[in-house]
Amino acid sequence: SSPCSIQTVTLIPGDGIGPEISTAVMKIFEAAKAPIQWEERNVTAIKGPGGRWMIPPEAKESMNKNKIGLKGPLKTPIAAGHPSMNLLLRKTFDLYANVRPCVSIEGYKTPYTDVDLVTIRENTEGEYSGIEHLIVDGVVQSIKLITEEASRRIAKYAFEYARNNQRTSVTAVHKANIMRMSDGLFLRKCREVAENYKDVKFTEMYLDTVCLNMVQDPSHFDILVMPNLYGDILSDLCAGLIGGLGVTPSGNIGANGVAIFESVHGTAPDIAGKDLANPTALLLSAVMMLRHMGLHGHAKKIETACFDTIRDEKVLTKDLGGNAKCSEFTADICRRVQDMD
Amino acid sequence: SSPCSIQTVTLIPGDGIGPEISTAVMKIFEAAKAPIQWEERNVTAIKGPGGRWMIPPEAKESMNKNKIGLKGPLKTPIAAGHPSMNLLLRKTFDLYANVRPCVSIEGYKTPYTDVDLVTIRENTEGEYSGIEHLIVDGVVQSIKLITEEASRRIAKYAFEYARNNQRTSVTAVHKANIMRMSDGLFLRKCREVAENYKDVKFTEMYLDTVCLNMVQDPSHFDILVMPNLYGDILSDLCAGLIGGLGVTPSGNIGANGVAIFESVHGTAPDIAGKDLANPTALLLSAVMMLRHMGLHGHAKKIETACFDTIRDEKVLTKDLGGNAKCSEFTADICRRVQDMD
Ligand SMILES: CC(C)[C@H](C(=O)O)[C@@H](O)C(=O)O
Ligand SMILES: CC(C)[C@H](C(=O)O)[C@@H](O)C(=O)O
Repeated sequence: SSPCSIQTVTLIPGDGIGPEISTAVMKIFEAAKAPIQWEERNVTAIKGPGGRWMIPPEAKESMNKNKIGLKGPLKTPIAAGHPSMNLLLRKTFDLYANVRPCVSIEGYKTPYTDVDLVTIRENTEGEYSGIEHLIVDGVVQSIKLITEEASRRIAKYAFEYARNNQRTSVTAVHKANIMRMSDGLFLRKCREVAENYKDVKFTEMYLDTVCLNMVQDPSHFDILVMPNLYGDILSDLCAGLIGGLGVTPSGNIGANGVAIFESVHGTAPDIAGKDLANPTALLLSAVMMLRHMGLHGHAKKIETACFDTIRDEKVLTKDLGGNAKCSEFTADICRRVQDMD
Repeated sequence: SSPCSIQTVTLIPGDGIGPEISTAVMKIFEAAKAPIQWEERNVTAIKGPGGRWMIPPEAKESMNKNKIGLKGPLKTPIAAGHPSMNLLLRKTFDLYANVRPCVSIEGYKTPYTDVDLVTIRENTEGEYSGIEHLIVDGVVQSIKLITEEASRRIAKYAFEYARNNQRTSVTAVHKANIMRMSDGLFLRKCREVAENYKDVKFTEMYLDTVCLNMVQDPSHFDILVMPNLYGDILSDLCAGLIGGLGVTPSGNIGANGVAIFESVHGTAPDIAGKDLANPTALLLSAVMMLRHMGLHGHAKKIETACFDTIRDEKVLTKDLGGNAKCSEFTADICRRVQDMD
């Protein structure tokens, strides 16, 4: 699709502060004249035939049609047997790659200034297979499933990402010294794929070593690719280095362009509806989405405006150290976006 | 045994820099008149009947007799089928608790100043069960095994540790939202044990959230208890916060007083034999050992001397930012220990 024609995106505002930060993103997109039209959908799970929880058909159809979604935070279901909606979405649309760029934000102080890395997490199997058994009373096993296909697919994604984003190295993160067969398989596939990308440097590291080095000096890392659980851990750790989930974007990528971009912070029920939320994580996820759609100009414009507002330190939400409302922070970004024209 | 009688400890100097740093520890113990006699043993694995790798009988007998060991780094075996000696030792002596106190060291700058926590890792099962299968070509499963008994045992250890070390809270670290049965069992046992320790605050946290909060503000954490792999990851992460494995002590504790204390850094073959190694991690592990043996006075003396040398910044090994030799650093600690008399 040409960058001039208007494309429709499924918007899942989510719970808690979700609607407010979604509104903020829509306003900023409008100010930036991003050629996007939103189709709002609710994904609160419903019980399908046989009592299985499923995504409401309207949401599913919308995603199937549009292929691209933007999603706010969803509250954790408490009903027994109720799946995490985040996991159900990843599974339903086979969103096999979870991508989280972590880049230090100028003006937002953390102990680290030089973070510029991307975690790429296998999003469909591993420790998240959901297969568990009670062997005998008091003895439980959980199964970690690693397949050649999923490992090759995520490795390939990582190397393609490196090439397409002017990055120079990919590190496979593993514990193949302990899980010799499963992590061993994952690692072998990474090595094989690396053979086809001689322009990208490939290294291997133990997960524990990565964590240790990461908190000592994250500036050495570039792209990190890893099985599901390790990605869950490492992506949150890295988000912490640059200021937390409130400023970290995330994308779940599937085949054939299908993708859902989401903020991975919580629903913050305590401040919901009070115009106090920080829309940065959802906005930067939406910027990732624009790049995914080939809309690089709009992406750059919005990203620059957002970072300028933060660097300027005058209009910041509370969690960023200021006392501006969500709407004021949003207006400041809109103004900057419009000034760029 | 009374603190005045001399006790024998099995010393496993290990490979690479192991012998040098072991010598350093022995010198400092001598200066401090610690009532310890060393029985040196080598644990290079040998092939037993049926081709199974095992710990040399002399080392095993020594440990069985003395119950307490101090161990330097061991090189990673490269022979196929050769087990990690660290894992084999933990298994052979059923050292079910891996304990790593992480405390910020005054004078050794890192981005964090207020770290004072202890990771307590279940050391015998979980993802380290070593059970793996090839299901069909290209599909591998690894089994994570969680038992009621091992979970209760480690939880109890954590709460006892809290009580005996004037600590106020225990946090169970888990992913029971994903591994509902296995981590669920672990968590349930922690909750049950917590009921018997009403004087200690008990909380539960997701591993990813812990990692994120840890790099943002580690000062909130006290004792963390968790399954094997999570402990592997988190203990290294926390070591990174205070300066790395070169300054972090570690103890592997079993039943009936059996324990091996060890430095968990590598063998550093590049500087081995050059009198450049930093003995701090092994020394602080030996201090943990003294406390385990009830020798609190000697422990305090040596620990204080070590921290004073580091705070003073005049005689530091290279990795600590100075240019002193291992022997000079050791001599400085010995002098301080003797001055305390
Ligand atoms: C919500 C939860 C199930 C999820 C996970 O564990 O993957 C979250 O931590 C994430 O990283 O997206
Ligand atoms: C040496 C290795 C097998 C070990 C582990 O993974 O447990 C190490 O990382 C540790 O933490 O002691």
